[in-house]
Order: sequence, then C-alpha cells, then structure tokens
Amino acid sequence: MLGRLRRIEGQIRGLQRMVDEDTYCIDVLTQISAAKSALHAVAVGLLEDHLAHCVVDAARAGDPTAKVKEASDAIARLVRS
Amino acid sequence: MLGRLRRIEGQIRGLQRMVDEDTYCIDVLTQISAAKSALHAVAVGLLEDHLAHCVVDAARAGDPTAKVKEASDAIARLVRS
Amino acid sequence: MLGRLRRIEGQIRGLQRMVDEDTYCIDVLTQISAAKSALHAVAVGLLEDHLAHCVVDAARAGDPTAKVKEASDAIARLVRS
Amino acid sequence: MLGRLRRIEGQIRGLQRMVDEDTYCIDVLTQISAAKSALHAVAVGLLEDHLAHCVVDAARAGDPTAKVKEASDAIARLVRS
Repeated sequence: MLGRLRRIEGQIRGLQRMVDEDTYCIDVLTQISAAKSALHAVAVGLLEDHLAHCVVDAARAGDPTAKVKEASDAIARLVRS
Repeated sequence: MLGRLRRIEGQIRGLQRMVDEDTYCIDVLTQISAAKSALHAVAVGLLEDHLAHCVVDAARAGDPTAKVKEASDAIARLVRS
Repeated sequence: MLGRLRRIEGQIRGLQRMVDEDTYCIDVLTQISAAKSALHAVAVGLLEDHLAHCVVDAARAGDPTAKVKEASDAIARLVRS
Repeated sequence: MLGRLRRIEGQIRGLQRMVDEDTYCIDVLTQISAAKSALHAVAVGLLEDHLAHCVVDAARAGDPTAKVKEASDAIARLVRS
C-alpha cells in the first residue's frame, strides 16, 4: 500500500513538473487519469482489507451493522468524489 | 430498489425525448449526470445489502474470503466504469 | 445517440427484472457498471458534439468564453456524479 | 494549478503517514476521496484552459476537428479512470 502511495506521490510530482514546463494539456490530463486509476486501486485494496478484517470480525463478534454502514458510506463517497 | 430503477428508466426515456427534440446538449448532460448519480445510489444500496447478508453470513459460516474478494472486485468495476 | 439510449433503457429494464427475480447482487452490480459505462459513452459523444458545434461556432463568432465555461461545468458535474 | 498539485502531493504524503501509522481504513478512504476530488478539480481546470485556448484557436484558424477529438478522448479517459 505504502509503495503504491509513493508511486502516486511521484506521479503528482511529475504532474507539477509537466505544468511547470508547460507540457501539452492533453498529456497532463492523461497523467491525471493514470494517477486517478492508481488512487482507485489503493482505495479498493483498503476496502478489501476493511471488509476482510473489520466487517468480518464484527460479523463474528455479533453485530456488524455499524461496520457495514460505515463501509458502504465510504464506497458512496468514493464513487461520487 | 425497484422503485429507484423505475425512476431511472423514466430518466433514460426523458433523455431520449430530449435528444429527439434537440434539447440543448448541456441540459442533456445535466440529466445524464443525474441518472448516473441515481445508478450510483442503487449500486451502493446493493453493495450494502451484499455486505450485510452475503459477506456477514459467510463470515459467520467460516470462510468469507471468496465473498470479500467478489465484493471488492465489484467495487473496482463500479469505480472504473 | 437515440439508439444508444434505447439500449441503456433496455439495460435498466433488465436490472429491474434481475432485482425482481432476486438475481445475485454481484451480477446486478456488474450490469449497473455496464449501464454506467454506456451512459458515459453517450455523455462523451454529446460533449464532443457540443465542442464541435457550440464551442467552435462561438469561437468563430467572437467570444466563446461563456460556452467554454458551460462545457467545463458540465464536465465537472459528470466526473463528480 | 501548481499550488493545487502541491496540496495534492501533501494529501498523498498524508495518506502514506496514515497507512504507516495504521490509521482506521475508513479515515484513509475519506482522505483518498478528497485527493480524488482535488485531482478532478485540476483536470477540469486544465480542460477548461484547453478548450479556451487550443480548441478556440483551432476553430479560428480553420479546422478544429482534431483538437475537438483529442479533447473528448481525454474526457473519456478521465471519466473512466
């Protein structure tokens, strides 16, 4: 996860360089789409971890309702952001 | 869920009418964004149900790994579509 | 454009049938992602038309500022919906 | 634009810290959604500039078809990433 985020940080710094050097807008936009995809991959990985640990543990412990609600609220924020 | 999908069907029919009557593009696009938001609401509702039932039941029955993977794959498809 | 919207209407009706017949959530979600992709294709097609006609005509007639602003507001609504 | 990208770089570094310190997944996801929104704002700003300059200049110079196609391809990549 940390390695992926470091690569995204590198992509964002690359974007700053591109803007600074007046790179053609369309090429900057392509790089933004790549950074967005990479962020999505991190988000989906975190959600998978969250389901596999927090939601599953709550289900075994008794009442997972709050954890399920919290996870679907996070999914809603992610798809609408 | 069914009520929401019926309203989305109405929105899509409204879009056909707008295109047919040469409505101004920007107004058609606003309506498309509204239909997309409504589809997202249905998707998040289904995901919440899926977590609350399939994932939780699998957690209680023993091994939820497959259900968790399936849910996160569905989330990945949703955010990237 | 109209043909595409009719196919999306068919997809939404298919979704109602799936929900009505208690189809497995994940399969319903896959179909929702497909409908969302199809809506995106219509939106991008409309935006391309809008740029090729309204924005281009406004540029030739003199001041395209308002049309450009309107188009980018529509893009912003689309990516955030 | 550069200022916005620097703030996004800060958000990504904040995300690394959160992951490193085992921050609760849901809070990390909220921060990812915020970074995604910020990236969208940069993308829409770049598209607006692109329309206002490249597309408008091409329209005035004669044939904007290639620029319009390029812009709508970039929009398509952005909404699907």
